Amino acid sequence: MDASLEIVVRSTEIDVNGHVNNAKYLEYLEWGREEWYERANLAYDKFLDLGIQTVTVNININYRKECLQNDRLTITTRPERLGRTSYVLKQEIHNQRGELVADALVTSVTMDSHTRTSRPVPDELARLFAHLAS
Amino acid sequence: MDASLEIVVRSTEIDVNGHVNNAKYLEYLEWGREEWYERANLAYDKFLDLGIQTVTVNININYRKECLQNDRLTITTRPERLGRTSYVLKQEIHNQRGELVADALVTSVTMDSHTRTSRPVPDELARLFAHLAS
Amino acid sequence: MDASLEIVVRSTEIDVNGHVNNAKYLEYLEWGREEWYERANLAYDKFLDLGIQTVTVNININYRKECLQNDRLTITTRPERLGRTSYVLKQEIHNQRGELVADALVTSVTMDSHTRTSRPVPDELARLFAHLAS
Amino acid sequence: MDASLEIVVRSTEIDVNGHVNNAKYLEYLEWGREEWYERANLAYDKFLDLGIQTVTVNININYRKECLQNDRLTITTRPERLGRTSYVLKQEIHNQRGELVADALVTSVTMDSHTRTSRPVPDELARLFAHLAS
Repeated sequence: MDASLEIVVRSTEIDVNGHVNNAKYLEYLEWGREEWYERANLAYDKFLDLGIQTVTVNININYRKECLQNDRLTITTRPERLGRTSYVLKQEIHNQRGELVADALVTSVTMDSHTRTSRPVPDELARLFAHLAS
Repeated sequence: MDASLEIVVRSTEIDVNGHVNNAKYLEYLEWGREEWYERANLAYDKFLDLGIQTVTVNININYRKECLQNDRLTITTRPERLGRTSYVLKQEIHNQRGELVADALVTSVTMDSHTRTSRPVPDELARLFAHLAS
Repeated sequence: MDASLEIVVRSTEIDVNGHVNNAKYLEYLEWGREEWYERANLAYDKFLDLGIQTVTVNININYRKECLQNDRLTITTRPERLGRTSYVLKQEIHNQRGELVADALVTSVTMDSHTRTSRPVPDELARLFAHLAS
Repeated sequence: MDASLEIVVRSTEIDVNGHVNNAKYLEYLEWGREEWYERANLAYDKFLDLGIQTVTVNININYRKECLQNDRLTITTRPERLGRTSYVLKQEIHNQRGELVADALVTSVTMDSHTRTSRPVPDELARLFAHLAS
């Protein structure tokens, strides 16, 4: 399942160099992942009910093009890889001209919210990666 | 009781116009108030124990001078006025040359954390304003 | 002339207390003013052509209600008062239930971009306040 | 050459989950790199004089531990790898207990500031990687 979110770059998101700062891209990616989880009916509360927390352990991001004020960005999120206790989402940001401005792999692990030890990815989440199985 | 906090302006706090953005000053002020509460032994937990929450209801800020990257700012916070269920803190930001870059009056009210209705300012907080009484 | 801008509260705009932070409201207000200037055909470049810069000297903001993640906020901006070298905009933020969450008066002065001394508000801007004249 | 920068985690840097947000770590890393460039006498102006701009093209960050308000973080930056037109810095963030909270590889390319095409890493920068040569 893919999810897309469209946003507009605002003035206070522009840094001293006149474009969107590196760090801000990671906020955009987070907003995109929130959208993906919500579309998948996997809101924060759902995980809580399962006694599970997801924790981001790695982000590997390529910066391709700069973003300017008023740019309309589309953030897409889709399943990339499923492990036993971890999973990877692939995210891309395109601008209003269809240009790729950034792409990233985001690796998360699933943990027991009480013991804080790793736990298998729950079925509710794993099924979203099913089509990737060889 | 006064409290001061010294900070350094960082690159990602500079906006498209090359100086610290209006909104960021309010973060600096909040950091200064946190310092003031901590020095007064009125940390967040203390209020919780009293069943009280403080809520900021008004900020009136004058912008006097711009701040640039690497500027060393001193944020001072002191009691200004005490009401029955509200109080006002006066905050100033000076740069490394002693110039006033901003000053603000910050009005908060004390509320019952459960009923969310206003409650008298607790003695622990009120005594910090005692020297202002006529 | 009024201008409105609609935005959605994102996860990274929520602070440790679970709601939008004080400082973030000032970013929302700035986004609203940018919209107002653009609708009035008074983009940044236009001022530059006139050799003028506008500088915010005071913001007086009332916080009325908290904002939560996914809230849809409408920021409205309208002329409030015109002086010789300064002007005041009135801004309000309402949530998706029509509740007023914050209102603010924002005072700016017009300055010569080279000499950095105050200059009369240019006609292009002053005419937007004409209907307020007694 | 290594450079270290010490900072304190502030209240407005804490997100809805009660710890420092993923994106904020990238701001900390940027502050650390600024410190490294300054210690190396390679401030922004120096690159401008050389007609060169450095552009970050990839950040690969591991999140190891959460950071909380008032944590004292040390950000270290050191040369990792030198290419013809690119270079990699290794950055680590430790907390006041000496625990590694994040580490990252940051890849930048050097570009001609006018033509925006890649250019060899200037000697002033390359010499900082000299001790890594086999």
